[in-house]
Amino acid sequence: MKNERGRVLVVNPNSNRAVTELFSAELEPLRFADGPEIVCETLAEGPLGIESELHVAMVAVPLRKLILERNDADAFVIACYSDPGLYVCREATPKPVFGIQSCGISLALSLGERYGVLALKTASIKRHLRYLRQLGLVDRLAGERPLDLSVAESAEGEHTFGRLVEVGTALRDKDGADVLLLGCAGLSRHRRPLEEELGIPVVDPVQAAVAMAVSTVRFRRTTR
Amino acid sequence: MKNERGRVLVVNPNSNRAVTELFSAELEPLRFADGPEIVCETLAEGPLGIESELHVAMVAVPLRKLILERNDADAFVIACYSDPGLYVCREATPKPVFGIQSCGISLALSLGERYGVLALKTASIKRHLRYLRQLGLVDRLAGERPLDLSVAESAEGEHTFGRLVEVGTALRDKDGADVLLLGCAGLSRHRRPLEEELGIPVVDPVQAAVAMAVSTVRFRRTTR
Amino acid sequence: MKNERGRVLVVNPNSNRAVTELFSAELEPLRFADGPEIVCETLAEGPLGIESELHVAMVAVPLRKLILERNDADAFVIACYSDPGLYVCREATPKPVFGIQSCGISLALSLGERYGVLALKTASIKRHLRYLRQLGLVDRLAGERPLDLSVAESAEGEHTFGRLVEVGTALRDKDGADVLLLGCAGLSRHRRPLEEELGIPVVDPVQAAVAMAVSTVRFRRTTR
Amino acid sequence: MKNERGRVLVVNPNSNRAVTELFSAELEPLRFADGPEIVCETLAEGPLGIESELHVAMVAVPLRKLILERNDADAFVIACYSDPGLYVCREATPKPVFGIQSCGISLALSLGERYGVLALKTASIKRHLRYLRQLGLVDRLAGERPLDLSVAESAEGEHTFGRLVEVGTALRDKDGADVLLLGCAGLSRHRRPLEEELGIPVVDPVQAAVAMAVSTVRFRRTTR
Amino acid sequence: MKNERGRVLVVNPNSNRAVTELFSAELEPLRFADGPEIVCETLAEGPLGIESELHVAMVAVPLRKLILERNDADAFVIACYSDPGLYVCREATPKPVFGIQSCGISLALSLGERYGVLALKTASIKRHLRYLRQLGLVDRLAGERPLDLSVAESAEGEHTFGRLVEVGTALRDKDGADVLLLGCAGLSRHRRPLEEELGIPVVDPVQAAVAMAVSTVRFRRTTR
Amino acid sequence: MKNERGRVLVVNPNSNRAVTELFSAELEPLRFADGPEIVCETLAEGPLGIESELHVAMVAVPLRKLILERNDADAFVIACYSDPGLYVCREATPKPVFGIQSCGISLALSLGERYGVLALKTASIKRHLRYLRQLGLVDRLAGERPLDLSVAESAEGEHTFGRLVEVGTALRDKDGADVLLLGCAGLSRHRRPLEEELGIPVVDPVQAAVAMAVSTVRFRRTTR
Repeated sequence: MKNERGRVLVVNPNSNRAVTELFSAELEPLRFADGPEIVCETLAEGPLGIESELHVAMVAVPLRKLILERNDADAFVIACYSDPGLYVCREATPKPVFGIQSCGISLALSLGERYGVLALKTASIKRHLRYLRQLGLVDRLAGERPLDLSVAESAEGEHTFGRLVEVGTALRDKDGADVLLLGCAGLSRHRRPLEEELGIPVVDPVQAAVAMAVSTVRFRRTTR
Repeated sequence: MKNERGRVLVVNPNSNRAVTELFSAELEPLRFADGPEIVCETLAEGPLGIESELHVAMVAVPLRKLILERNDADAFVIACYSDPGLYVCREATPKPVFGIQSCGISLALSLGERYGVLALKTASIKRHLRYLRQLGLVDRLAGERPLDLSVAESAEGEHTFGRLVEVGTALRDKDGADVLLLGCAGLSRHRRPLEEELGIPVVDPVQAAVAMAVSTVRFRRTTR
Repeated sequence: MKNERGRVLVVNPNSNRAVTELFSAELEPLRFADGPEIVCETLAEGPLGIESELHVAMVAVPLRKLILERNDADAFVIACYSDPGLYVCREATPKPVFGIQSCGISLALSLGERYGVLALKTASIKRHLRYLRQLGLVDRLAGERPLDLSVAESAEGEHTFGRLVEVGTALRDKDGADVLLLGCAGLSRHRRPLEEELGIPVVDPVQAAVAMAVSTVRFRRTTR
Repeated sequence: MKNERGRVLVVNPNSNRAVTELFSAELEPLRFADGPEIVCETLAEGPLGIESELHVAMVAVPLRKLILERNDADAFVIACYSDPGLYVCREATPKPVFGIQSCGISLALSLGERYGVLALKTASIKRHLRYLRQLGLVDRLAGERPLDLSVAESAEGEHTFGRLVEVGTALRDKDGADVLLLGCAGLSRHRRPLEEELGIPVVDPVQAAVAMAVSTVRFRRTTR
Repeated sequence: MKNERGRVLVVNPNSNRAVTELFSAELEPLRFADGPEIVCETLAEGPLGIESELHVAMVAVPLRKLILERNDADAFVIACYSDPGLYVCREATPKPVFGIQSCGISLALSLGERYGVLALKTASIKRHLRYLRQLGLVDRLAGERPLDLSVAESAEGEHTFGRLVEVGTALRDKDGADVLLLGCAGLSRHRRPLEEELGIPVVDPVQAAVAMAVSTVRFRRTTR
Repeated sequence: MKNERGRVLVVNPNSNRAVTELFSAELEPLRFADGPEIVCETLAEGPLGIESELHVAMVAVPLRKLILERNDADAFVIACYSDPGLYVCREATPKPVFGIQSCGISLALSLGERYGVLALKTASIKRHLRYLRQLGLVDRLAGERPLDLSVAESAEGEHTFGRLVEVGTALRDKDGADVLLLGCAGLSRHRRPLEEELGIPVVDPVQAAVAMAVSTVRFRRTTR
């Protein structure tokens, strides 16, 4: 039976359930009493972390399959910062499909003047820059700097917050960023403390994308 | 006494109450049972429509004044497509201030590949293009085309929808837009029918901005 | 036993052997008596034609597998205009991997001032433009126009050359292109007649990429 | 009597024969048994090194004269990194004329993501940047750094290779280049050792341009 | 009675008469015996210095009023580096209205290759960069660096020249600027000494704009 | 004996004295009673008109020679729209050297929002666009359209003004230009009538450059 309120399906393309649970908990504020349901799932076929071009490529077809199977959802969010399979999925369905990097930058551009990105690793930056050129959103990039953490460390590690403060400070003070973007799906819980610590807005890309999905569903389902 | 749920204040910088009521009605889907209150106000000092550089300049200081007086609001939306006074207001408060053109483009870039804008008038396009360069968001603009309607006509006129379909079709088929953006705050009620008619997503900039404001307030107020 | 002269492996990522044979025949001038061997293969796992994002995504992992298995090759060319799997393959091997769109544009930029692209279909242009932004090579694009032919038609059809002349003329005379690029791997045999007909250089992207591969192999293998 | 195999004429626009001989030796791998002849000549009217705008301007007309006289050649390469006289020569002949900076960047963009340039001198960088803007190829430039060597030193000096390694390392590690380009025609013999030392592709612009000329001649002369 | 020679009205949008007098004195070389009169006025309604978005917004409408009242002038110059009210004023009159930042950059681009800007304060740079994007004049910006001086200090302070030399040297030597632009209306008298000290052209934006206004008036009034 | 008032030397790089006289007459308004002398000369070595890359290249060295010989001049203007020899001359002297295309665009950008260029011939447009990319001044180009006139016709022809109106109208109404630039040194006398006919500012590049030269000389020679 179809959900009356509508449903947003958020898919974690890596198979690490801990990450899915982490960001799901941080989506609580978007679970309105009468708003769309927000369901988070883990892609069984995904690698443990998406850290290479191979990983990005591997998950595109399984993501498409999942999206085609889930008739119960009204909108989809692909919750990995590399936006894997975004165009493949969009091609497969008339329903809206959101990529978190694209949405995260969109929100950052609406909150500040120049955005700085906290990437997990140096190696990801090259891939991200290529995608930024593709998105045509390079002009207001203040800089992207690596945390030099693995996906696992970023999820658990004690010193993750310390690194976020350190790298975020450099983006703010050396690169001139006045809004920051977390460059990974597993850092949501640090968004608010980091914002308070640094005094400039911090965007979590999963939250940014799910908020867009929630309102899009709402506008499509509600009768005036 | 402060509102428990938080409050978004949406200001119409022109003094035309009919326009404020039109877009307020279309924000209903964002008024969640337990979400932030959405209050729409009309700027008493504003001109009847914002159709010139003078109009844009005139409202900046009154908007700032209004925003400083309204301690009860947690976020602000300036509901005019020219984003008048945006930087003046941001400078005046640490609370988030959203401009609808900026947010509308942001949402459009998250939904499609190249966006087309439906401007009220030919004369506005020059001003918009200048602002798009400032925003650094020209690369994925498919085109901007005028409806050649006054603000008054756009709000009331019988043939407004016909023009929207005509101009939207040209943006889609001649300019290659795969997502459209309404270039005026008073067209919200045409969003959904136009989307259904043309078969590509149509973004209303007021709705886009208020959705961003709602989620931003929600994330700042909610304790985990 | 390793080939003394070196070997370039050209992979057709679609499973249409007719296309592979067509472009292989047109690579004859690059098969020098003492130069690297040029071997053309068809990807068994590929779809019959690459005409969608799904097709592009599907072939990335099989291409990578093929490249890893073929120790006998010194350089690889992915012979599909969408450059599918390019970054996935590059990540997998220290040997050079060339994409034909990237190489085709590179050669066009070395021969003329502004290049025009003959795409098979309207639908491909959107995908190509996105990739051009990613490549950072939009500035000298004069235009891209569709032939409105299927892969099958383009390979066999009687009137393919007529369409090439018609569309190429528009690119030259209306868009100001002074060099043309064939936007598909199956059009090689039309390169020379089209060049003669239109009086401006015409680049076949498979030939452009294989020429780069041949010289790269040559410089790596030859002892001074 | 006309050469059956075709002929590429490579002109060194400076009058330093030692430089001509140096790069000619390094073109050996492109001299295929049945391929086009590669002839290298020194422009008698050229200055000893091309190190100023005056030098660039001086050689344009003599280059044009040489090219018009040499009916025996099927394609021309202007072997100076400033691409002097390129447009003057192209205007004078329907045969292809290649500039080594343009071709070198083209090959670099086909081999890697972001390219770094090793310039002879600080003073040349300003001229090169102007030309890069003209070529529309700035977007993927990682950086350009000077070797601070004269043309003479670069050709003979003992410590040239040491400087190449030092500056190339900075381009790779500080600027993020993943492919390097030698910014001078007299450094060819260092290409391969530098590539091996730094572990990323190194492009010699003379070799890049001559390879393009060889294949272009081959495709124009060969009958299927 | 109308002035036979024509008249340029230069308006200082801040109400600091000392600044007006400072730049007026430095316009002496443009007061030709038979050329247009150059009149400098102080906007009574302006703040003491223009150091925020609020200040920029506040003066737009008063500037427009002043310009409409002054029928005796043939051209106007708005003498504040933020170009406040420029588009508002242009909309109000068919007479030419010049902004000093826009004109200063224009002259700098005609004198050198890459320009460096000496801003009064760090906080202004963000505003200037936004405007540079709007002007579409970012490509040849070498850099902008702050003097960290208040408007008052810059007009009086002993050590202003020392800071100009220090920051100008950094722009020239670290950022590669070969022409400098004073990023404030009150620094005119330092232009010539700074130019002599640093050995590269230094542009004063008030002088640049007034020179354009003078010649424009002259061409409109003179009968051949 | 040195001129007390200073002197601007305007060089026509083509050897057509009629053109020199035409623009010299139109510089009368810049010959102030106490301002720098404006001397116009014809380059004896120049071709009759500069209509090709060869012509551009030919005049660079003679222009440099002339500039070095003329110690009596304080600033130089190269009065050909292709800005031939600009960098060669700048390299040769510390005195300011202005190119008319560069200066003309600079003035146009200070007068309007988007500029349109009236080129003599279709063939020149390709050369101009290349130079515009080099200048980094493409963003606000509304369009460039050819008059299809020879240099001789443009100087004498009866119907030149008719063509200017026709093409200028297209630039204004179809391309959205709000300021026009004459793309040739021999059209000065049409500037004012064209401006009056079309109702938007029209820039003559010779006048724009000489005005910059006059004020630059004035500021360097005048003692405060």
